[in-house]
Amino acid sequence: MGSHGRDEKAIRALMSRWHRAVGAGDLAALLSMISEDAVFLAADRPPLRGRAAFAQEMITLTQSCALQSSAEIEEILVSDELACCWATLNVTTAPLDGGAPSVRTGPVLSIFRKEDGGHWVLVRDANMLASDAADLALKVDNLERELMADGPGG
Amino acid sequence: MGSHGRDEKAIRALMSRWHRAVGAGDLAALLSMISEDAVFLAADRPPLRGRAAFAQEMITLTQSCALQSSAEIEEILVSDELACCWATLNVTTAPLDGGAPSVRTGPVLSIFRKEDGGHWVLVRDANMLASDAADLALKVDNLERELMADGPGG
Repeated sequence: MGSHGRDEKAIRALMSRWHRAVGAGDLAALLSMISEDAVFLAADRPPLRGRAAFAQEMITLTQSCALQSSAEIEEILVSDELACCWATLNVTTAPLDGGAPSVRTGPVLSIFRKEDGGHWVLVRDANMLASDAADLALKVDNLERELMADGPGG
Repeated sequence: MGSHGRDEKAIRALMSRWHRAVGAGDLAALLSMISEDAVFLAADRPPLRGRAAFAQEMITLTQSCALQSSAEIEEILVSDELACCWATLNVTTAPLDGGAPSVRTGPVLSIFRKEDGGHWVLVRDANMLASDAADLALKVDNLERELMADGPGG
């Protein structure tokens, strides 16, 4: 196996450990897989900058929800000490109060850096999980229909 | 200037040319800056795979809209023949029929590859422009208020 093959295998293993740790709520394991300066990007919220900010976000989230995630890896590009992984991500968020779980899916583009010693860590993450826009558009439609039915001609 | 410095400068110049070409509607210039196998990722739509698919999307879009875009570069990471650029993107879409232009902003994570000959091209793009979710949530609120006012107690 060439150097790229080894690197790709290491990143695949890291991704598997990541999603197991999400399901287990193992924050220490998650933090060991990201760099101190990791940045998490998404639409509709400011960038989450640094390991401490990520930890706080996970603590807040898991106080009210149980998370499960998985990813199908589409490709991994590696060049020396930088790698780029495109995957299709699935995240299930189940409220701890027993509410209905929500399932969101979408692409994620993750950048990994090879640290001294040769292990890889996540440094930048672009999360494109589907927004609530489609659900909300449906709700607007239904409400507008309801309003028309309630109107003078209804 | 070191090799990384030269690469970063080349990518900054590419980004400037990109946004000038978007404003000028210069599709040929845009296509010269992306690889044949470029992939454009975003929430709420399937991946746009390949130069031809990107060209078709731009042609369709610019038949009804004039586009302007700009980006503030947050950072560029370079390793050998792969580079990662995080920027804050602004896109203005003005309908050609004279409708009100919409302005969207959000992060973008772009991956560039150094081709034989040493020039860089865009290969993967993760677009996290804000969705319509916030606007739609406001609309739902307003419609629900209206419905309550129309109801038996209103």
